[in-house]
Amino acid sequence: MNDFRLPGSTVPIRALLFDTFGTVVDWRSGIARDAAPFLKRHGIAADPFAFAAAWRARYQPAMEAVRTAQRPFALLDTLHRENLEGTLRDHGADPETLPAAELDDLNHAWHRLDPWPDGVPGLTRLRTRFIIAPLSNGNIALLLNMAKRAGLPWDAILGAEVAQAYKPQPEAYLRTAAALALTPAECMMVAAHNGDLHAARAVGIATAFIPRPHEHGPGQTSDLTATESWDIVAPDFLALAGQLSV
Amino acid sequence: MNDFRLPGSTVPIRALLFDTFGTVVDWRSGIARDAAPFLKRHGIAADPFAFAAAWRARYQPAMEAVRTAQRPFALLDTLHRENLEGTLRDHGADPETLPAAELDDLNHAWHRLDPWPDGVPGLTRLRTRFIIAPLSNGNIALLLNMAKRAGLPWDAILGAEVAQAYKPQPEAYLRTAAALALTPAECMMVAAHNGDLHAARAVGIATAFIPRPHEHGPGQTSDLTATESWDIVAPDFLALAGQLSV
Repeated sequence: MNDFRLPGSTVPIRALLFDTFGTVVDWRSGIARDAAPFLKRHGIAADPFAFAAAWRARYQPAMEAVRTAQRPFALLDTLHRENLEGTLRDHGADPETLPAAELDDLNHAWHRLDPWPDGVPGLTRLRTRFIIAPLSNGNIALLLNMAKRAGLPWDAILGAEVAQAYKPQPEAYLRTAAALALTPAECMMVAAHNGDLHAARAVGIATAFIPRPHEHGPGQTSDLTATESWDIVAPDFLALAGQLSV
Repeated sequence: MNDFRLPGSTVPIRALLFDTFGTVVDWRSGIARDAAPFLKRHGIAADPFAFAAAWRARYQPAMEAVRTAQRPFALLDTLHRENLEGTLRDHGADPETLPAAELDDLNHAWHRLDPWPDGVPGLTRLRTRFIIAPLSNGNIALLLNMAKRAGLPWDAILGAEVAQAYKPQPEAYLRTAAALALTPAECMMVAAHNGDLHAARAVGIATAFIPRPHEHGPGQTSDLTATESWDIVAPDFLALAGQLSV
């Protein structure tokens, strides 16, 4: 492998660290797909895409309780399960009356998300030159099952429980780089979210912005464009590979 | 994927967890290969294979200091580096007088070990039906660099620092299964060492013995045959795949 350095940098990039939900996989379609038959079966009146958005809306507040130490570290699978129950209540359903096995299965819809079309071919190409790994708030089992089903060719899977921290906490980035025995400057964060890149840059990690303008559906208003001068901006993973000379 | 169950068991095996040093890769040849030019360059009179064996002989005692809490958890890269210095002293060399960069590079010989001939084809085949992951005392960076160089197609890499325990401590096995969100009975330990399998079985993990009669060179006396009634005994990973109906 030849070294790739950003302009003006003396440090070669060794690892590309990927945000997962939204950047690699399309959570909105996948959750709606698996929620639809569940909602229908139990007579819950909700548009599956709106249900997916409502479930996802509880994601940041749930992690914030961990970040602010209102509760001990809990796996994302656990937070997703609690959030599912809250979302069901918001839609007039009592999760206590629904079969636990069905709730568990629906919760695992987060393990069954499909990649964006450029996901697998892009990662496969990037992997020939760089270490590729998720830097996600997902837990190991979630990310592993997702990768196994979708064919995501990660070199390593470091779930949030390895760092015991949720992005954008600095520890989430720093402990992941340390687990790879790399300095932050040897790592590049790849994300569809400006906030994720802002936090990565703050600890010295290089940044690549891949906008995913349909992550939130047709009416998306956030993260449509780069809000800072990221090291790389590319429309998809294949274009990223080109810019990284892979 | 169809489920594979051991005779008499109702629980399908989901993950195969592999001992690495000796079972997947040939540490003796790899360390000797990288030690040879180093020893020659610095005029250290030692047979490279004997040097590899002497370095490896310090492996268990170093981990034992962690297991017995004589010292806090330390990565295997750190233990290997300390053990290298001790081995050099035993051979009449003063590591303080040797270039640190060369010592670091030789220490990374553990990241550059070659698999046994059946390693990559066997894992590639097993991976089509099972989650495959190392359950090694190696740290994440070591196992990742080894896999990247050798083409080991792991689904996940859970270094010893995830479990914060060294085999054969029960926590090393139990925390790895838990990180995969699996019960011990859904996991099978694959190892060339009876002691490793004994400890895995003690916590409810299924067992497969793959003898590696040349791990320690021509005069090997240990682990030549199964010393307990392991669930599976196979001469290599391809035969293991056959027995697991892959």
